[in-house]
Amino acid sequence: MGLLVVGSLGLDTVSTPFDKVDGALGGSATYIALAASYFTGPVYLVGIVGEDFPKEYIRLLENHHVDLDGLQVVPHGKTFRWSAKYHYDLNVRDTLFTELNVFEKFDPVIPEKFRKAKFICLGNIDPELQIRVMDQMNSPKFVVCDTMNYWIEGKKDELLKLLKRVNVLIINDSEARLLAHEPNLIKASKIIREMGPQILIIKKGEHGALLFTEDIIFSAPAYPMEMIYDPTGAGDAFAGGFIGYLHKTHDLSPENMKCAVVYGSAMASFCVEKFSTKGLEDLEYFRVYDRFREFLNLSKFDDKE
Amino acid sequence: MGLLVVGSLGLDTVSTPFDKVDGALGGSATYIALAASYFTGPVYLVGIVGEDFPKEYIRLLENHHVDLDGLQVVPHGKTFRWSAKYHYDLNVRDTLFTELNVFEKFDPVIPEKFRKAKFICLGNIDPELQIRVMDQMNSPKFVVCDTMNYWIEGKKDELLKLLKRVNVLIINDSEARLLAHEPNLIKASKIIREMGPQILIIKKGEHGALLFTEDIIFSAPAYPMEMIYDPTGAGDAFAGGFIGYLHKTHDLSPENMKCAVVYGSAMASFCVEKFSTKGLEDLEYFRVYDRFREFLNLSKFDDKE
Repeated sequence: MGLLVVGSLGLDTVSTPFDKVDGALGGSATYIALAASYFTGPVYLVGIVGEDFPKEYIRLLENHHVDLDGLQVVPHGKTFRWSAKYHYDLNVRDTLFTELNVFEKFDPVIPEKFRKAKFICLGNIDPELQIRVMDQMNSPKFVVCDTMNYWIEGKKDELLKLLKRVNVLIINDSEARLLAHEPNLIKASKIIREMGPQILIIKKGEHGALLFTEDIIFSAPAYPMEMIYDPTGAGDAFAGGFIGYLHKTHDLSPENMKCAVVYGSAMASFCVEKFSTKGLEDLEYFRVYDRFREFLNLSKFDDKE
Repeated sequence: MGLLVVGSLGLDTVSTPFDKVDGALGGSATYIALAASYFTGPVYLVGIVGEDFPKEYIRLLENHHVDLDGLQVVPHGKTFRWSAKYHYDLNVRDTLFTELNVFEKFDPVIPEKFRKAKFICLGNIDPELQIRVMDQMNSPKFVVCDTMNYWIEGKKDELLKLLKRVNVLIINDSEARLLAHEPNLIKASKIIREMGPQILIIKKGEHGALLFTEDIIFSAPAYPMEMIYDPTGAGDAFAGGFIGYLHKTHDLSPENMKCAVVYGSAMASFCVEKFSTKGLEDLEYFRVYDRFREFLNLSKFDDKE
């Protein structure tokens, strides 16, 4: 049974202090699917593009065992486009433009064969659409969802409805503070978990990630990066690695969940090492595993008493 | 042989959104000495106070096996005073006043018996004074030093001279960026280690701490705190726990250094749980050890492959 991924596919124009790309492959579903593909397959992808979406990107996804039966290609339509410029401090970016194009009318229709999927990753799109996906599923077992400030502020009611139906929410620290109206992340985690998701993951960029469950708090380190070429998609790559590893192992224990957070962090670290999706295109599983081991060495210490 | 601690002793007036204290025990040497006292003893303290320094604070330090033979008490002098107000976001504080008083003329004189100390912790004071301490020591084996933005900007030359003579520099992330002129902490760590200290520790507050040695990078998690009552002294408590544990174990291997960073983090977490030095006054070693175990559980994960 495949892993269902729903989200955006787009063409990105991104500049950083190091380089610039135009019309590069982007979108939350793209990054999630590519990252997950190193752990499991097939990935059932549901999204929308225009006729201008390059064939090479289709081939790239197919080569990663992404099942595109749920990809709507709108005749004469234009693909979603996004442009951003990152500053010297890569934590600061300006969005230069967002052209929704065909994405404006996106109505996620889940193909019959996808509806039996047990593992679902809802990429960062309008919570109304995320709910519409859930309504079409037969009996999902494990649902991971992402969101952002824009929806927390603009579609709070729909988001709260959705949160009652998901197992895991993955957000960053500023989103967690905003959603919970609470600056302390430990307090915020309790407030958010009471909104529905049993499991909360707070991504903290260069400071790693925190996993909160009923019984544990786990602090995953950040990979020590000397150079970040393009932060775009890091959060989606994290989500893809996280759910991809869990879909592969089918072990939802807290101990395995910790490993999934580290595999998510590993995929995010590969993602930002190159522009656009390049860092996720030509990996080998042994490199992913090696990086997992690096995370282990980075945070491991022993009790000598 | 005792552990030598040199730094400030002061009377603090501090307010946070939760409470306010006036004339509370403060100063870098005080926090370092109290934190270290849970691991080792005696602590040889060198500092200066005025005649107004309360007898109860002297007794408190003596009860923690702090040897005060190096404490200069200036007749008719007034003790160093510092006042600060923390905002709702406890990362932001305003210094309301700093009265150097007797500290202005502090010339650290190391008593003969202290000069043989092998482990030295130089609290955050003028690097010229830190150098003067080093000049009086016989054959120090392991020197830890702290500093701050004020000295990095105002006494750079003296600080660089000092750094060639210390084994460990402990600073926070903004200080590391300032000292190295480099925003990326991994790159900054290399630049700073080339200035002299073989070992660099970068404290990141609520995001934990990073340890850099020749061979390893270690990422220590932060203790998940729901409530921080008073952040004052956390960095000094960290340094005290770090060197106290190393002085106790006399094991300077990278593996043991990691444990020392975690014990430092543990002492910092106790420090901020109460006002002023209260959180470091009545601990028991088993509580320190329990917290160390909590850090272990917080960051531990296993490779299941």
